[in-house]
Amino acid sequence: MKTVAVHTGIPYEVSIGRGLLGRAGEWLAGLTAPRVAAMVADDTVDALYGDQVQQSLRGAGFRVSRMRFAHGEASKTLETYAAVLAFFSESQITRSDIVVALGGGVTGDLVGFAAATWLRGVRFAQIPTTLLAMVDSSVGGKTGVDLPAGKNLAGAFHQPVGVLCDPDVLSTLPGDVFADGMAEAIKYGVLCDEALFNRLAGGLRPEELETVIGRCVAIKAEICAEDERDTGRRQLLNLGHTLGHAIERCSGYGMPHGHAVAVGMVYAARIAADLGLCDAGCIARLKAALRANGLPTDADYPAQALAGAALSDKKRSGGTLTFVLPRAIGRCELRPVPVERLPDLAACALRPDV
Amino acid sequence: MKTVAVHTGIPYEVSIGRGLLGRAGEWLAGLTAPRVAAMVADDTVDALYGDQVQQSLRGAGFRVSRMRFAHGEASKTLETYAAVLAFFSESQITRSDIVVALGGGVTGDLVGFAAATWLRGVRFAQIPTTLLAMVDSSVGGKTGVDLPAGKNLAGAFHQPVGVLCDPDVLSTLPGDVFADGMAEAIKYGVLCDEALFNRLAGGLRPEELETVIGRCVAIKAEICAEDERDTGRRQLLNLGHTLGHAIERCSGYGMPHGHAVAVGMVYAARIAADLGLCDAGCIARLKAALRANGLPTDADYPAQALAGAALSDKKRSGGTLTFVLPRAIGRCELRPVPVERLPDLAACALRPDV
Repeated sequence: MKTVAVHTGIPYEVSIGRGLLGRAGEWLAGLTAPRVAAMVADDTVDALYGDQVQQSLRGAGFRVSRMRFAHGEASKTLETYAAVLAFFSESQITRSDIVVALGGGVTGDLVGFAAATWLRGVRFAQIPTTLLAMVDSSVGGKTGVDLPAGKNLAGAFHQPVGVLCDPDVLSTLPGDVFADGMAEAIKYGVLCDEALFNRLAGGLRPEELETVIGRCVAIKAEICAEDERDTGRRQLLNLGHTLGHAIERCSGYGMPHGHAVAVGMVYAARIAADLGLCDAGCIARLKAALRANGLPTDADYPAQALAGAALSDKKRSGGTLTFVLPRAIGRCELRPVPVERLPDLAACALRPDV
Repeated sequence: MKTVAVHTGIPYEVSIGRGLLGRAGEWLAGLTAPRVAAMVADDTVDALYGDQVQQSLRGAGFRVSRMRFAHGEASKTLETYAAVLAFFSESQITRSDIVVALGGGVTGDLVGFAAATWLRGVRFAQIPTTLLAMVDSSVGGKTGVDLPAGKNLAGAFHQPVGVLCDPDVLSTLPGDVFADGMAEAIKYGVLCDEALFNRLAGGLRPEELETVIGRCVAIKAEICAEDERDTGRRQLLNLGHTLGHAIERCSGYGMPHGHAVAVGMVYAARIAADLGLCDAGCIARLKAALRANGLPTDADYPAQALAGAALSDKKRSGGTLTFVLPRAIGRCELRPVPVERLPDLAACALRPDV
């Protein structure tokens, strides 16, 4: 088992190890004395792992109440949020009890936001069950729901008391959902770890999962601890996300997040090359790594549409958007861009590579 | 003009002075460079003061977008919260813009919660227009909405960047709404300031308002700065609230908050006297002061019903509720009580005074 410490305002640990799911109760009892645990999962994850986790929690002395909701991004709404709060109410969750989010990014974000705001904040633990959630969304304390106007528009910063990652559960993930997580893992490589990038560039063997998840979490933890509220260096984690979010928006959120981030990283690399920040080799290596992991390197939306969609990015601060641009594989920088330049940059992002 | 500093994590100031409302723009420009200001008020307050504040903000260079919602506690729901978020979206509020809550406690709590969670937190300023909001709810950063299961069950701690109190606006308040605020003012006297209590005991002259608001805010600010997250000393501010909330609940929220707190304080004093913490004179002085300010000193719910309603208090921590009990006018203490004792205490609270 690996343990990565996250040094946010209230510090916590990410525990990573095969077979940990069956010992979830023991793990949670190490974080808090047994009490009521309100466990929330989507129907798919609940059917696969709900009983096992509930049994383990009960075995450790927790009184477990359990809720499931329909799987998928379409559930990440204020309506489901209200349903989770009603469940907390029925379960009589007090400030000394604990919430357990069991699932992928949608579950962690939704349930984390409910925990952040129920009674103005109760503690919650994350048990991510997708690669994306393990390497990205379960760490760092960002929680929230989508609104009709856009993704993640309402939310809170609320750090979990602990995160448990069991790579064994990834064996039940569909291939393209696994690839989604690989996009974020590759992102960490491009951002600040060329060795990690090289390890992932040819695809990943199952026995490497624990090490790779640990390395990704360590990178994210280090960056988040330095900038918990996302006002400075944490913006580096948006590599591929500014145009990635625009692509998701253009696709009507039909394209999965990680796939859009993959394309967004290629676009960011093209913009960087155009500005003379990196060379064409950087783009080529990135595209090859994405392809080897079953990820796309291009999408079919015109520059105009991308620029328009990027305008509604919630990270926009007045008339400026901050792009993350690679200087090389393993090194990136933040570059503020006036929104007037978005059409140019989008056009440049779409230019075919020589 | 008086200024009270609030030394929370991110400190801010409460400005109190007659006629300040007409200089709201100048005041806000002192807090942040002019940008988009999203102003929210209920229909009553919007009709009375909306134009004046908007004009003042515009005069200071802000681009103002404005929303109103139906007045009353019935609007403090997730539905209105969603409508406020939609308004922020239409107004394209970014993290560098500002939200202005103009109104009473419902407005401050609702709009503050929307500001706390829009894009995971944007800045907001409070312009309270009721005495209750000035002396209590606008200071300390508690925001939230009611749920079908109870009041203030969903919310966040989110401090404003500043609070502006203009006592002149209180002249348009209905008498019983003014009395509501007096209950909270008297509470501060009972809690820790006998001189304040004596000043309020015979009713309040309009020319004393500025001084009294300033003193109440200073007491609340001092307590909140010490315990921003309400885990210790801040619980003192719940004097009269544990049974007060129970009374509100029993009344189907027909009894106004301040009125219920008034009765709750009498009940707390009776429990304290029964435990030998204070003498009968303390109860008599409290009741006289409440009556002189048009507030009730008793309600008509049986002990069983009160105890049952108190059980759902969100401050409950496992099997314990913390009561705030007076030792004398000007001095109170926290006393944890096992929930099993609630029926006894409620019975004691209802015992007629000799």
